[in-house]
Amino acid sequence: MAIAVKNLDKAVSTVENLFGLMPSRIEEIPDQGVRAAVIHIGDTEMEFIEPVNPDGGVARFLETRGEGIHHICLEVDDIDEELKRLDTKGAKLIDRQARKGLAGKIAFIHPKSLHGVLLELAQKA
Amino acid sequence: MAIAVKNLDKAVSTVENLFGLMPSRIEEIPDQGVRAAVIHIGDTEMEFIEPVNPDGGVARFLETRGEGIHHICLEVDDIDEELKRLDTKGAKLIDRQARKGLAGKIAFIHPKSLHGVLLELAQKA
Repeated sequence: MAIAVKNLDKAVSTVENLFGLMPSRIEEIPDQGVRAAVIHIGDTEMEFIEPVNPDGGVARFLETRGEGIHHICLEVDDIDEELKRLDTKGAKLIDRQARKGLAGKIAFIHPKSLHGVLLELAQKA
Repeated sequence: MAIAVKNLDKAVSTVENLFGLMPSRIEEIPDQGVRAAVIHIGDTEMEFIEPVNPDGGVARFLETRGEGIHHICLEVDDIDEELKRLDTKGAKLIDRQARKGLAGKIAFIHPKSLHGVLLELAQKA
């Protein structure tokens, strides 16, 4: 899951203070206009994202909804197949073609298709 | 993670249609005023919750924010210890004492403590 925050360093220090968890990596993803910190919890990854582009989707999310969970991500084996499959099932694809993201090859599915949940699919690099 | 929806049966059929996933159980949790469907994805559980109590927190969430991710849940070994520990760290506890929930003994931490994320701790029964 990815949590939109105003200040990435503050979020990282919150999680370190409360749970003793440290990010395994911090990276800028220019394509998505964010800086991201990835924290492993068991088999799950918690990701904090801070907008670096004031016109991007995450910046708009923070303006309208404030800090909070921005999207969830599911790992898939073959993202191109999965996008084709979801398309035939009537899902509303934001990305019709997978593109490069923090988690590998990624694509987003519109929240309208999943009860308000923005879904990212990721095929590990 | 738990996703607040208006109609649980519709949400369950969406996930079945898009991903071929079926709930492992559907239960009413009177204490939280919701009906819930639990769907396993790898080591993670996706839970859909529909309010059955129109005055409860989930009903209010739907009114103000619409359908979407309501909270996340982390499993802990000893929830009473964890609540004590988080209290000394300055986290704002909604439940100072663990109570019975769908996932076992549970307690909620206020979103103010975790950048807008409502966090549930759960100790499996």
